[in-house]
Amino acid sequence: MKDFCYCLPTRFVFGRGAEQRAGAELSALGATRVLIHYGGGSAVRSGLIGRLEADLRAHGMEVFRLGGAMPNPRDDKVYEGIELVRREKIDFLLAVGGGSAIDSTKAIAHGACYDGDFWDFFCGKATVQKTMPFGVVLTTSAAGSESSNSSVIMQEKTKIKRGLGTEFNRPRIAFMNPELAMTVPKYQIASGATDILAHIMERYFTCETEVDLTDRLCEAAMQAVIRAARIAVKDPTNYDAQAQLMWGGTIAHNETLGVGRVGDFGSHQIEHELSALYDVAHGAGLAVVFPAWLRFQMTKPEHVMRIAQFANRVYGISMNFENPAETALRGIEAHESFLREIGMPLTLKELGARSEDIPALAAKTKRNPGTDVTGRAWPVNGAEIEAILRIADR
Amino acid sequence: MKDFCYCLPTRFVFGRGAEQRAGAELSALGATRVLIHYGGGSAVRSGLIGRLEADLRAHGMEVFRLGGAMPNPRDDKVYEGIELVRREKIDFLLAVGGGSAIDSTKAIAHGACYDGDFWDFFCGKATVQKTMPFGVVLTTSAAGSESSNSSVIMQEKTKIKRGLGTEFNRPRIAFMNPELAMTVPKYQIASGATDILAHIMERYFTCETEVDLTDRLCEAAMQAVIRAARIAVKDPTNYDAQAQLMWGGTIAHNETLGVGRVGDFGSHQIEHELSALYDVAHGAGLAVVFPAWLRFQMTKPEHVMRIAQFANRVYGISMNFENPAETALRGIEAHESFLREIGMPLTLKELGARSEDIPALAAKTKRNPGTDVTGRAWPVNGAEIEAILRIADR
Repeated sequence: MKDFCYCLPTRFVFGRGAEQRAGAELSALGATRVLIHYGGGSAVRSGLIGRLEADLRAHGMEVFRLGGAMPNPRDDKVYEGIELVRREKIDFLLAVGGGSAIDSTKAIAHGACYDGDFWDFFCGKATVQKTMPFGVVLTTSAAGSESSNSSVIMQEKTKIKRGLGTEFNRPRIAFMNPELAMTVPKYQIASGATDILAHIMERYFTCETEVDLTDRLCEAAMQAVIRAARIAVKDPTNYDAQAQLMWGGTIAHNETLGVGRVGDFGSHQIEHELSALYDVAHGAGLAVVFPAWLRFQMTKPEHVMRIAQFANRVYGISMNFENPAETALRGIEAHESFLREIGMPLTLKELGARSEDIPALAAKTKRNPGTDVTGRAWPVNGAEIEAILRIADR
Repeated sequence: MKDFCYCLPTRFVFGRGAEQRAGAELSALGATRVLIHYGGGSAVRSGLIGRLEADLRAHGMEVFRLGGAMPNPRDDKVYEGIELVRREKIDFLLAVGGGSAIDSTKAIAHGACYDGDFWDFFCGKATVQKTMPFGVVLTTSAAGSESSNSSVIMQEKTKIKRGLGTEFNRPRIAFMNPELAMTVPKYQIASGATDILAHIMERYFTCETEVDLTDRLCEAAMQAVIRAARIAVKDPTNYDAQAQLMWGGTIAHNETLGVGRVGDFGSHQIEHELSALYDVAHGAGLAVVFPAWLRFQMTKPEHVMRIAQFANRVYGISMNFENPAETALRGIEAHESFLREIGMPLTLKELGARSEDIPALAAKTKRNPGTDVTGRAWPVNGAEIEAILRIADR
């Protein structure tokens, strides 16, 4: 187990009607001028934004709106938000939505406290030293951004999508009402569940040894998320399935399951280029990339036993002690079957991606600084990234 | 799943040499006059207290010492600490040790900010409104007090042991170096592991339904703790086993595994009277009480399936679908075998407790307010508490 420092200061208000406490809680946090940042019109049409606004006003706050946070959130909206914060002397940001609204809000919060271009943080030219307080009303289970230290933004002009990891990315408070996720389209529920599983898998497939406790916590969470996803995709109104997915999504990406481990995140880097180029749902992209990445890793004998462990403990595949590789492969197949069952794509074609783009996708994939490889635990180089994408091009 | 609010503000510094960062970290927290509160002489003899003192002084702090925190920590030490804090204008408390030193430190911190008698908090006459900042250098894996919302103190004159749950009980920072636990006597390692498991089991045996995610997280943690305890008791110098136990002890009692559930804690209430009367290790008392409590709960048909789930998923007992009670019973037996293997007592006699004390022990056991029952999930009344103690009196 690796040494670690860990602090998760986010306050979670979880359950039915959780968002109705936003006014009281934000007031206790000292918010006076609040910018609500959200995505498409559904949060407005459902009345959620209006209700939040009324509640915050009833608690004496001035409220401003910024809509239009898009999937694969764009830098232009961040610039717009930063300007608005400065003009209106906003002192608290409230993201309403999923990963896009939250990630965009994080970038606005950091950018508003910085004299330079906020993109400096995302391209590695500067590190965040200060941010403003922000919270979340979560409406969809996927990115885990409601308490992760991560934010991902796409630069519109270059179509480059970059992630930023910093402790300043942790929200002060997260209102999590699983009922709000019941109106999310089924494809998006499935895509969210795939993202959640990928966050766990990125941590699970590690090079660190003696991590039995977090191994088992990861396996536990994967089993529960798989079960809940199957139910929620069939019946989005099932509260308990939505609740397991929502909390599962949170712990999947806030290091509850990752402390003391080395995570990989190569699959995430490869996927970021897919969703940047084709504007597909991040989870759907991961449904294509992750199994291909696993199939590729099977070619490295030292990784077979851990994939077999995944097969056995997560999907209940009986261990073949004479031939662990067979067990491992059956685990990957079981994972693909699950993804197929919840309606996810498994191939580049289904995603609308083109074979001829593969070299460019591989070339653009973000590498570990100063190297040709991506991924921290089971790194793959440029040729191997291409090989992974070719496996996905079936 | 139940609705919940959850926030865990403790910062964890975990790994080899973690305590060497105390000076820098406490300085960053603004500490200037620090009281180090610890237990017996071993922390002094090992040089740990001296090293911490030197480090804090090197960072410009004034340092004071208060030793003598005892297992089943006493109120007299708390009064002494409160007086010292006031006299020396202490602004930060640093507990060094395990549950006793930490629980005692929590009580001192609350008491020092309160005009009345600190015992008011523990007997329910007052609620904590304010506390002073405190941190922990953990030297033994057991109580989970390094980030739990709990503190347990014994009133010397009445031999009454009472727990206090409040969010003010969460330390600001916890330095957790598994190497420090290597010199803990094997009996205490085993007793600590039993306490850790009991904290998980108190949450696991719940009346709440649809808690698949936290069920599985509990099972995962129990499996890892059982494995690590077996190793650490045989070889206390095994770093990785100590690390799993130490982090396992933390998540066992800080609601990582308990959110959205109803915990029981009846076994803890029953055990508190045992350790108050006979001054036995809390974990050893739990080794006697918890299996007896489980055997008693087997008489209630509605609880059999959950105990069978425990047997199957934690101890790998093959499920007998024709006779789940047989599976459940085999699970309890497996748990008893494990406790025996690591050197724990299983009977009142081994604990040094007397049969004739049973009625008094049952009578003294703390009840849920306004009722004759103890335990929130699977409550038991006075006659049933006696029956449980009789099962343990074998």
